[in-house]
Amino acid sequence: MAKTNPGRFFEDYTVGQVIDHAVPRTVSGGERALYHALYPARHALYSSDEFARASGLPASPIDDLAAFHVVFGKTVPDVSLNAVANLGYAEGRWLKPVYAGDTLRSTSEVIGLKQNSNGKTGVVYVRIKGINQNDEVVMEYVRWVMVRKNNIDAPAPEAVVPDLKQVLSVEDLVIPEGLDFSNYDFTLAGEPHRWGDYEVGETIDHVDGVTIEEAEHMIATRLWQNTAKVHFDLTFRPDGRLIYGGHVISMARALSFNGLANAQMIVGLNGGAHANPCFAGDTVKCWTEVLDKAETGAPGVGAIRLRLVATKGGEPFVLKGENGKYDPNVLLDLDYWALMPM
Amino acid sequence: MAKTNPGRFFEDYTVGQVIDHAVPRTVSGGERALYHALYPARHALYSSDEFARASGLPASPIDDLAAFHVVFGKTVPDVSLNAVANLGYAEGRWLKPVYAGDTLRSTSEVIGLKQNSNGKTGVVYVRIKGINQNDEVVMEYVRWVMVRKNNIDAPAPEAVVPDLKQVLSVEDLVIPEGLDFSNYDFTLAGEPHRWGDYEVGETIDHVDGVTIEEAEHMIATRLWQNTAKVHFDLTFRPDGRLIYGGHVISMARALSFNGLANAQMIVGLNGGAHANPCFAGDTVKCWTEVLDKAETGAPGVGAIRLRLVATKGGEPFVLKGENGKYDPNVLLDLDYWALMPM
Amino acid sequence: MAKTNPGRFFEDYTVGQVIDHAVPRTVSGGERALYHALYPARHALYSSDEFARASGLPASPIDDLAAFHVVFGKTVPDVSLNAVANLGYAEGRWLKPVYAGDTLRSTSEVIGLKQNSNGKTGVVYVRIKGINQNDEVVMEYVRWVMVRKNNIDAPAPEAVVPDLKQVLSVEDLVIPEGLDFSNYDFTLAGEPHRWGDYEVGETIDHVDGVTIEEAEHMIATRLWQNTAKVHFDLTFRPDGRLIYGGHVISMARALSFNGLANAQMIVGLNGGAHANPCFAGDTVKCWTEVLDKAETGAPGVGAIRLRLVATKGGEPFVLKGENGKYDPNVLLDLDYWALMPM
Repeated sequence: MAKTNPGRFFEDYTVGQVIDHAVPRTVSGGERALYHALYPARHALYSSDEFARASGLPASPIDDLAAFHVVFGKTVPDVSLNAVANLGYAEGRWLKPVYAGDTLRSTSEVIGLKQNSNGKTGVVYVRIKGINQNDEVVMEYVRWVMVRKNNIDAPAPEAVVPDLKQVLSVEDLVIPEGLDFSNYDFTLAGEPHRWGDYEVGETIDHVDGVTIEEAEHMIATRLWQNTAKVHFDLTFRPDGRLIYGGHVISMARALSFNGLANAQMIVGLNGGAHANPCFAGDTVKCWTEVLDKAETGAPGVGAIRLRLVATKGGEPFVLKGENGKYDPNVLLDLDYWALMPM
Repeated sequence: MAKTNPGRFFEDYTVGQVIDHAVPRTVSGGERALYHALYPARHALYSSDEFARASGLPASPIDDLAAFHVVFGKTVPDVSLNAVANLGYAEGRWLKPVYAGDTLRSTSEVIGLKQNSNGKTGVVYVRIKGINQNDEVVMEYVRWVMVRKNNIDAPAPEAVVPDLKQVLSVEDLVIPEGLDFSNYDFTLAGEPHRWGDYEVGETIDHVDGVTIEEAEHMIATRLWQNTAKVHFDLTFRPDGRLIYGGHVISMARALSFNGLANAQMIVGLNGGAHANPCFAGDTVKCWTEVLDKAETGAPGVGAIRLRLVATKGGEPFVLKGENGKYDPNVLLDLDYWALMPM
Repeated sequence: MAKTNPGRFFEDYTVGQVIDHAVPRTVSGGERALYHALYPARHALYSSDEFARASGLPASPIDDLAAFHVVFGKTVPDVSLNAVANLGYAEGRWLKPVYAGDTLRSTSEVIGLKQNSNGKTGVVYVRIKGINQNDEVVMEYVRWVMVRKNNIDAPAPEAVVPDLKQVLSVEDLVIPEGLDFSNYDFTLAGEPHRWGDYEVGETIDHVDGVTIEEAEHMIATRLWQNTAKVHFDLTFRPDGRLIYGGHVISMARALSFNGLANAQMIVGLNGGAHANPCFAGDTVKCWTEVLDKAETGAPGVGAIRLRLVATKGGEPFVLKGENGKYDPNVLLDLDYWALMPM
């Protein structure tokens, strides 16, 4: 019996199947410090216990995207080892902040399957849950990937394509218990711009950039226990190690501090596309478009829906060409909801 | 209204102005571990809780220079975003050790302004304070930088040049409460040389060297939430990302362990010059000259004033050429007070 | 008196001598997070406090090899600063798990000396102990190195070659107090293969690989306070910084998760050879041969003896050439005992 994990192929999935992923992970101040060392992350709620307490939380949580990466990394050996493309995200919700000392595990439920017409691959839809040591779901999201078949002759499953929300409504969002921005300190947070200062349609060039190094993206990707070999083994990818898409997400989100310092907590992920691959040597910059705004009912807390676009060159605010395809300089097109002081 | 931070220009400062800097930061064992991973730091008081307790402290503090960097990083968006040169430091004092769990913020008071004769730039002097969650000042220092004017026609302010001490006297230094080197373990500390073994005028070649990598200085600089783009964005600095001067300070200080293992705590910063820029690929070495010695009154604790010079090649003990200018191989010339067992 | 450490030379050692090494080290969640960021480490017992508690331990320990490196690093200034070759390991035993908050120091007892026939070098055998803050020995191992003489005319000491066990027997191994794999969760651990599924003589190609970067091996090596200049100073090693052998050990062990996810705890080190040097740019892969199996008496806990071979290319399962010498692609040949659920 072969001992190494060959990963699952398209014919190994069935709708309704629930996969409990290995390996649970306890996070500490170490993960938090590394997150701040790997990304220019400065959102005050994730930097200072005192700021978090003044906002009604018991302490400064682990960055929302760090929680996302921990949950995501566990799914790789079961979901994307034989994936040929990472197609999309939807219905992502952060349900509880994650704190130092919490232990996270992940599960995936297969919610859709559709074999491609070529008969060689198919699309697998999974709803992923991150669960803490108290069996509380801390986040969930849908991810779909194109996966190879191992046995080309395996019959195509009945096609099931889940009906996913294009955009989460503000009612879908979960505001962390106790969150209160009534006494928000804009000086300590770094910018004076409040929820009311942003207009739908407004665009922001975040100006700053980071040129990516191999060591950094590998350190980050390993930290989330994502061990897909494309990110690490140059003999497997002689044209260059492909950078984990989540590294670009975190880099862009951190860079967006400059102009969105008060978009503190990410609570919803409406969708996301890794438009082009990223390699070491690329300089990541980003821009944002304000897509929507909503009130939340929590004291002083507004919700803002943002499109975050990461690029590796070119001009800001260029997303797609006339052919409707992403501009070759666009790395990421992410649609998310954040919470902001009103 | 533009949302990104353009930074302050020379005409935006007034003497007496106090700037509260964003973003507060809670430090943990994570920052401590990263400091030891980024620099060959081995001073026992900062490595072992047991050693620190045997010296009268409650636990091993965060490295003094890590505290310096955390405090410094916060000042960058408000003080040096439009700086053209980092001119000097003075009157730096560490007033309280910083421990895991502490939250730091920074303030700067403008204590001097002097427009340059070209009318395009001016020198800004600020006294920076690092403050913990109990509103205690943990360190303070004066920094002065040359800053661009945005509006060339803005009138020159009345020139105010603060009267700064060339050197702190031993009475200016604050010895951490409870510090006691009476039962100092020289074996565990790594070297037998005590305060009495060093002579004023003595020079030490610290022998070891580290060749700097891009990933390392960026990880370090981000950890201190210093996001000045010159350090990160190769498209902004096509000749090479400029390494944060504080990275060179910490590297040299850590390398000076070999010969100064017992110069445990840094308590005073008399002055410092970043003599030449440092880039990835440079091999940093260092040497020290003993400038002064003094008794402190604390049990077994002596003070030693040291000149620490970091180089990127050349011979040790070469500081300046016949023209009075720094040798091109000199990166850093730092003048500090440390505490040592007598 | 020269202040820097020249290291010990062959003539400076005497059999029976005990060397107390500097610098003690308190480990935290920071070291743990860094270990997971630097290596693709996924063994569940070292990743999750919950998984460790379900196995009868109070919390998730620091990785066994991290403990090894902390203990090893301290010996470098006293044992291998003037070493020309790292010859071997034997009789390595992990006696107590190391947890966040523990402080470790090291001692070496010289147990053997043998001058080489060239009269210029000799072999020094030391038994190294890692000791925690409660004066408990947490691990011990024998290491022998070839060291230069400083004074060629110093007389050769009486040759003493210790009688070392080729292989530890299962009775030599110490099972951590309370360890119980009766209710082991194979799903959370990542693989279904239990102790009974492995056969002596079986070989496993671990498939995955990591291309090594300069920044990563330096960060790792510094974290263990191993400051041997060959690893850091390119002006000292213009042909390339030599990668710390322990970095290869940890990389290979972590990669062996894929096929040995349940070989949770390392409890014995029978021997090890760094067959060829490793440099940045090498892609490390590994394979394992099952050498032996034994029952331990602890509930559900079996012992498995494994040969772990790290390579930098070539085919798996190639160890030595017809001349009996290691294949030039072999980096490491390690023989260890691990604990596995039965």
